[in-house]
Amino acid sequence: METVKIGIIGAGRIGKLHAENLVRIPQVEIRAISDIFPDQIQSWAESFGIPKVIKDYQDILNDPEIDAVFICSPTHTHVSVITEAAKAGKHIFCEKPISFDLEQTLQALQVVQECGVKFQTGFNRRFDHNFKQVREIVEAGKIGEPYVIKITSRDPETPPSEYIKVSGGMFIDMSIHDFDIARFLSGSDVEEVYAQGAVLVDPVFAEYGDVDTAIISLKFKNGALGIIDNSRKAVYGYDQRVEVFGSKGCVNIKNDLPSTAEVSTVDGVIADKPKYFFLERYREAYVEETKAFIDSVLYGKDVPVDGNDGLQAELIAHAAKKSLVEGRPVKIAQVTPKEINLG
Amino acid sequence: METVKIGIIGAGRIGKLHAENLVRIPQVEIRAISDIFPDQIQSWAESFGIPKVIKDYQDILNDPEIDAVFICSPTHTHVSVITEAAKAGKHIFCEKPISFDLEQTLQALQVVQECGVKFQTGFNRRFDHNFKQVREIVEAGKIGEPYVIKITSRDPETPPSEYIKVSGGMFIDMSIHDFDIARFLSGSDVEEVYAQGAVLVDPVFAEYGDVDTAIISLKFKNGALGIIDNSRKAVYGYDQRVEVFGSKGCVNIKNDLPSTAEVSTVDGVIADKPKYFFLERYREAYVEETKAFIDSVLYGKDVPVDGNDGLQAELIAHAAKKSLVEGRPVKIAQVTPKEINLG
Amino acid sequence: METVKIGIIGAGRIGKLHAENLVRIPQVEIRAISDIFPDQIQSWAESFGIPKVIKDYQDILNDPEIDAVFICSPTHTHVSVITEAAKAGKHIFCEKPISFDLEQTLQALQVVQECGVKFQTGFNRRFDHNFKQVREIVEAGKIGEPYVIKITSRDPETPPSEYIKVSGGMFIDMSIHDFDIARFLSGSDVEEVYAQGAVLVDPVFAEYGDVDTAIISLKFKNGALGIIDNSRKAVYGYDQRVEVFGSKGCVNIKNDLPSTAEVSTVDGVIADKPKYFFLERYREAYVEETKAFIDSVLYGKDVPVDGNDGLQAELIAHAAKKSLVEGRPVKIAQVTPKEINLG
Amino acid sequence: METVKIGIIGAGRIGKLHAENLVRIPQVEIRAISDIFPDQIQSWAESFGIPKVIKDYQDILNDPEIDAVFICSPTHTHVSVITEAAKAGKHIFCEKPISFDLEQTLQALQVVQECGVKFQTGFNRRFDHNFKQVREIVEAGKIGEPYVIKITSRDPETPPSEYIKVSGGMFIDMSIHDFDIARFLSGSDVEEVYAQGAVLVDPVFAEYGDVDTAIISLKFKNGALGIIDNSRKAVYGYDQRVEVFGSKGCVNIKNDLPSTAEVSTVDGVIADKPKYFFLERYREAYVEETKAFIDSVLYGKDVPVDGNDGLQAELIAHAAKKSLVEGRPVKIAQVTPKEINLG
Repeated sequence: METVKIGIIGAGRIGKLHAENLVRIPQVEIRAISDIFPDQIQSWAESFGIPKVIKDYQDILNDPEIDAVFICSPTHTHVSVITEAAKAGKHIFCEKPISFDLEQTLQALQVVQECGVKFQTGFNRRFDHNFKQVREIVEAGKIGEPYVIKITSRDPETPPSEYIKVSGGMFIDMSIHDFDIARFLSGSDVEEVYAQGAVLVDPVFAEYGDVDTAIISLKFKNGALGIIDNSRKAVYGYDQRVEVFGSKGCVNIKNDLPSTAEVSTVDGVIADKPKYFFLERYREAYVEETKAFIDSVLYGKDVPVDGNDGLQAELIAHAAKKSLVEGRPVKIAQVTPKEINLG
Repeated sequence: METVKIGIIGAGRIGKLHAENLVRIPQVEIRAISDIFPDQIQSWAESFGIPKVIKDYQDILNDPEIDAVFICSPTHTHVSVITEAAKAGKHIFCEKPISFDLEQTLQALQVVQECGVKFQTGFNRRFDHNFKQVREIVEAGKIGEPYVIKITSRDPETPPSEYIKVSGGMFIDMSIHDFDIARFLSGSDVEEVYAQGAVLVDPVFAEYGDVDTAIISLKFKNGALGIIDNSRKAVYGYDQRVEVFGSKGCVNIKNDLPSTAEVSTVDGVIADKPKYFFLERYREAYVEETKAFIDSVLYGKDVPVDGNDGLQAELIAHAAKKSLVEGRPVKIAQVTPKEINLG
Repeated sequence: METVKIGIIGAGRIGKLHAENLVRIPQVEIRAISDIFPDQIQSWAESFGIPKVIKDYQDILNDPEIDAVFICSPTHTHVSVITEAAKAGKHIFCEKPISFDLEQTLQALQVVQECGVKFQTGFNRRFDHNFKQVREIVEAGKIGEPYVIKITSRDPETPPSEYIKVSGGMFIDMSIHDFDIARFLSGSDVEEVYAQGAVLVDPVFAEYGDVDTAIISLKFKNGALGIIDNSRKAVYGYDQRVEVFGSKGCVNIKNDLPSTAEVSTVDGVIADKPKYFFLERYREAYVEETKAFIDSVLYGKDVPVDGNDGLQAELIAHAAKKSLVEGRPVKIAQVTPKEINLG
Repeated sequence: METVKIGIIGAGRIGKLHAENLVRIPQVEIRAISDIFPDQIQSWAESFGIPKVIKDYQDILNDPEIDAVFICSPTHTHVSVITEAAKAGKHIFCEKPISFDLEQTLQALQVVQECGVKFQTGFNRRFDHNFKQVREIVEAGKIGEPYVIKITSRDPETPPSEYIKVSGGMFIDMSIHDFDIARFLSGSDVEEVYAQGAVLVDPVFAEYGDVDTAIISLKFKNGALGIIDNSRKAVYGYDQRVEVFGSKGCVNIKNDLPSTAEVSTVDGVIADKPKYFFLERYREAYVEETKAFIDSVLYGKDVPVDGNDGLQAELIAHAAKKSLVEGRPVKIAQVTPKEINLG
């Protein structure tokens, strides 16, 4: 059996998650994981049979045996790591967003293109059973031409304030997943964005010029309209719903629940809250996205979510930010660097 | 416009309910209502424009203008009232059960037949939007041959003990509706019954030789099997669900709710309890059953639920009682009076 | 029993509906109904016991016995009828919108105020069991401070093109109900509107400068955000859902269905489509709104939906129209006539 | 890290399933798997890293390194394999039923007891997220005293006729899972059984003296009542629902679905069918039951489903069979071997 040899760069929550999923894929061999505090992950790495924990990610890039890297380091490091990895001939799986800066994202993707390595953006939701099913129903024409795409995406709790500070803001940090899903479900790029935002949950967001509640209206190139509503805090759990309304009908998904149990008492009929947060809700989707990447590397298939998908979602995020600041709709063309020609 | 002139016999809860529904039907004129305590209903009758409140129901039977009567007096009076009404040439709508005694029920129905008047049994659930829909789906063959009929029927609160005492027992008083629905949904008579019962809710039921919880297994003549589960007390409200499972699928109905609102909080996702009891749940069904009876009288149509339907449900109730007492399955044939020949 | 004597002006679909509901209220006496084609409604009127069908609505205003009028004539006639009715001392129930012109609406409401008659705007949805329940849950604080109000409102079929032509456009004709519900559920006036619109269903809408699909973003004065999505055609039926998301939770309502039956077959689990259109869906709400108006007249209570409610919804509609035309968010203040001072 | 060394006896569908789950548990080392056609599973075994495929299961029992065995061979072999394995000092996980013969089951369990090895019966449903949640709700007293336990369990397709022939009949083969769940959810043993059965799906069942449709009524020792309905063929998929009704409320579970997507079209609102069959539906439950067994072996905990649980379910199955044959309720005591004294 042929195997893909993997190096993982960054052993935070998401780096560990990918590692734990990768060890369960027979065709994968994890060669090393890097972290700036290697001692802290040593015993975790051992328990999963990861042979090498290193401090400097460049040791991974310099290992000629390694075929592909998972970039799970902080966002501000992505561009340089991508660039070096691509030049070292490694296939790349990179967490979202690629960067906070469109020019830099573009530059990194151009290097990737020149080096001919595969590049997958970490939009895990495309691999979720519910979102995939909606896409299949839309694609099969069961609801006809899509008219309106509606996305609800609410986190169960606010991140720590030190994270808010460096997150890049709600649109690039959180809504970016919804921007990608909007493109995925509609099968169309976005043309114009209008964003409303407010600080309703916690004043700390205002301190960093950020919002915690937002409604983003979209116009798609294919003529459809879209709405995304985001909140940093839904006390009842991670709220992840979408709806696509079209000429022949409507498809919508409800939240996944820990169990289907319903309890009827004098107080009402009580069902479970949604699965708590992304780790619970998208557990299988994370597995599937890594499998898809490994398949692409192993069998020369196209990656299912490429660099352009990452870039397009960032363009929408930047347009949303500009719209919020300027209080008016903003066209994607107005935030797009001139150099864009990624096909 | 032709009208049907009605007399109502008995002004308890159900008599009043029928009266209030009848006044809203343009083709109906209520001529009189009788009650043994006429003074107590005088002002109620006035507010609904009922012109005459009388003590003796025979004044209704003697009124040559009256076309039809609603018999809403206590069960033990039904047989004699039916007999007299039929002989007076009045069409009859009679509340369930027709009587507590099979021979007497039979005797009353024979008089009805001889006199050629219409006779409708008050099985309101057949007129409910949900039950009707299930019947239509079964009849249209959408679930193929029915294999299993399942009925859940639970009251929200126990009746007063003075009622329990004279109710005739759970099977003839409460389950009788489910026995009728079982025949209605399966399109078949019942052949054999096995009843389990228990006193779990309130020991008062044991005092009167009654049960408050029961599971009744049915074998239908067409080969299908059935289950009914009954309880005198479901704290969350009136629980009225059915399911028909067959060769091509399954149809089931859920409870009707006061609203579709769902509240998601830290405590879970909370929906409304079922509509409280039969007055709320079957409000429209009661309207529809009286409309159907009036239509039958006015246009010479067959009644939708006839005397035989009343009798068949009583046969099942008696078989269930015998089964419970003797701890074994009982065939309907074993409780059927020899004289039965109602077509 | 005291009664309210009613005249109905206009016997189109909605005028007939109100008449049929009013005849069932014991405290109401319908004295007359007017229509420009009186012959066409004569037999309908008789069947409901309405004694007088007239051509000229001023005969209603001149009848000193009549306490109150229902204005159900075409929108362009509302202002003059309101003005005359108020001057004749009649209490007024008026269908939405009050007028197509804000200055005229304002003028009519000022006459109403001066004459001291009651004025109820025909926003029926406030009386619906589901919407009322949401409002009660929000008002009781069960979801905390409202952050986001989401409204989906889609019609099952497009109106005839002759109607589209004179409808005043989607916002004033259709979305106006949603604008009212947005205020009702949030408990706040609206400050700013941004509207996206498209012609996706039928090119006929473009002919009249109208749209058939719209997404309207709202900012409320209390800081909450809102989204309304409208379509002139949802092939699966009348889609009427709302959601209010807040600091302590979220409440949402689903569509009302003709039955709760679910059929499971090889093809999937199939449930009923929503009730077809407003006549089916809001049947009870129409009854309740007339009862509430009659109660206000009879017992001197405040009307539950007043002229200002009508005006505020129109302001939002005009702002939405302006936003759509100008491609930018529009503040309510920017479309508000200076004279407004209705308290 | 300490490990448990495992041998698997029988590499049919269920043997392979357990093997594939076991390889994912870090504390497990599979030493060997036996099958009477070892060549046929060689490449499968390799792909999962199982080092040894053997023909004779006694090689597993003779391997002193092996701590525990999974008995996945045909039912008629269970008793002798259990006996030998227990005498060889191996802990035992055994698929259901333990045997077709109560005396033999008893004998095998006595040997297990004498040898002091652990014995877990393969009732996977106890480990399912939905069933576990119902048990927790019942145990926490949220629905008060249990009054009625209802279980629906329908397979999506009939087994091949060669399987039907040797299956032991519906009760011991299929309903046995439901008998166990009935005890699990009620927290009580069963006292009496009444079974109705029919051949409605396929006449082949009649050829082997079996039924394909059954309704089984239960009386529990704690006074509660129970109903199980079984079918060998539900065309819409594996139907696995339970309900527990009690003094303070009711808890019920719905089927698990592949996705939560609902499609609304002119044809209705269509949701997914249930997950297809036990491999899809109980995928995680199978993982959890093996983890629990490994934990018991590793940390000396009690097994969560022991030999007595296996025996009790078999007693109910035998009573059901007897009831069906004799057409009367049968007490568990009437089918219980005298020797029973397993505590």
